[in-house]
Amino acid sequence: MSSRFYCGDQPLVTGQRIDLPAEESRHLLKTMRGRVGDRLVVFGGGRQYAAELVATDGKRATVELGEQVSGPAEPQIQMTFLVPWIKGGKTEFLIQKLTELGAARVIVFQARREVAKGDDSKIDRLARIALEACKQCERVTVPEISTAASIKTAFESAAGDPGARFILHERDGSRTLTATLAALPAPRESVIFASGPEGGWHPEELAEMGDDVVSVTMGPRILRAETAPLVAAAAVLAFAGEI
Amino acid sequence: MSSRFYCGDQPLVTGQRIDLPAEESRHLLKTMRGRVGDRLVVFGGGRQYAAELVATDGKRATVELGEQVSGPAEPQIQMTFLVPWIKGGKTEFLIQKLTELGAARVIVFQARREVAKGDDSKIDRLARIALEACKQCERVTVPEISTAASIKTAFESAAGDPGARFILHERDGSRTLTATLAALPAPRESVIFASGPEGGWHPEELAEMGDDVVSVTMGPRILRAETAPLVAAAAVLAFAGEI
Repeated sequence: MSSRFYCGDQPLVTGQRIDLPAEESRHLLKTMRGRVGDRLVVFGGGRQYAAELVATDGKRATVELGEQVSGPAEPQIQMTFLVPWIKGGKTEFLIQKLTELGAARVIVFQARREVAKGDDSKIDRLARIALEACKQCERVTVPEISTAASIKTAFESAAGDPGARFILHERDGSRTLTATLAALPAPRESVIFASGPEGGWHPEELAEMGDDVVSVTMGPRILRAETAPLVAAAAVLAFAGEI
Repeated sequence: MSSRFYCGDQPLVTGQRIDLPAEESRHLLKTMRGRVGDRLVVFGGGRQYAAELVATDGKRATVELGEQVSGPAEPQIQMTFLVPWIKGGKTEFLIQKLTELGAARVIVFQARREVAKGDDSKIDRLARIALEACKQCERVTVPEISTAASIKTAFESAAGDPGARFILHERDGSRTLTATLAALPAPRESVIFASGPEGGWHPEELAEMGDDVVSVTMGPRILRAETAPLVAAAAVLAFAGEI
């Protein structure tokens, strides 16, 4: 299972021949010194297949898909995270860890009280980090990563998601996440979490969030900006009995 | 609450005069430019007090303790973690995050399948990281940090702890942590978690652990060495309804 390659989020079927994306081809052919006839595993679009390297022009690797191979199940409760750009590589850290923990989607927004500035040019790097995390944790579904100019537009991007909306807010902590989840009517199929930057939420950000956003605490200690979303993800998995 | 200083793990009482430790004195006098008469907060031994800087010789800061001030409650279930030395600063990362999550004790051991070598000379640095994390998260109890030559001696160090013993082992994952916790007889007062290095557990390490150690999974995805203990901590807090 160590030679897993991503072939893009496209529908896959046994017998299909497919070119791996440029970076995955390079990794297979150069780093791993792949040769025609080598056996490997490819994944994409939520599925995974045994495969064989059947052709290459030295740059592109063409593989033929064999039997479908099961991967780890996605979490029962679909998790979307709205997280800020945070300086010091902490947004990248969050993308890696939230991918490991099964996040379906991450929207990275510009927080008012955070000096780190993000832009769409960084999205490829974040997507690559998510992909690498999928390869490492054996997940076959790559989370969707996008950016937003503010927490308001981040919530708007998730408008089609019927999930319960939570804001992680340590200074307004009378309700715990697990108690709030337990009080939601079943089926609990998806949740959306917004977490703040190192400087905390700006009052105008809180005002813009809408009445359907519920503030929850992550316990009595003040969690860092890069810790709180991970703890929320773990709490959802624990609540669902998956960990 | 931004000026919190540690005064060692000693019994504290209102009215007491106390010298802050060298590093804390330097931080107060040099970095924060503290002056006699300044108000601050000191903590240690699981308690926290309002205090005043009453004297200094330029190097040592002497404070007088005023009223006791409550800090965040410690977790209902006391958590001990046995974690390996891991390269790339990941052990330091774990100390910081486990402190934020309320760990009572961390024993850092030498794992067979890990190239990173630790020794007692690094313990001061780890203790400093734990202390800084306490200051940041407003916790008033500093976790106890120690080292062990192997997972066997790490478990022996925790022999006096009556808590249930768990090993985080992704390849032996039929039982989830939360289900296993739920099956334990109440009261569930303490738990001990052992987590492995990046290369995984060595069979001899598993053989040495004793029959009272229960193997649990952290979900279907393979969590990194520096992720699994955090998820276990969060799961315990979620199980107890604290997050």
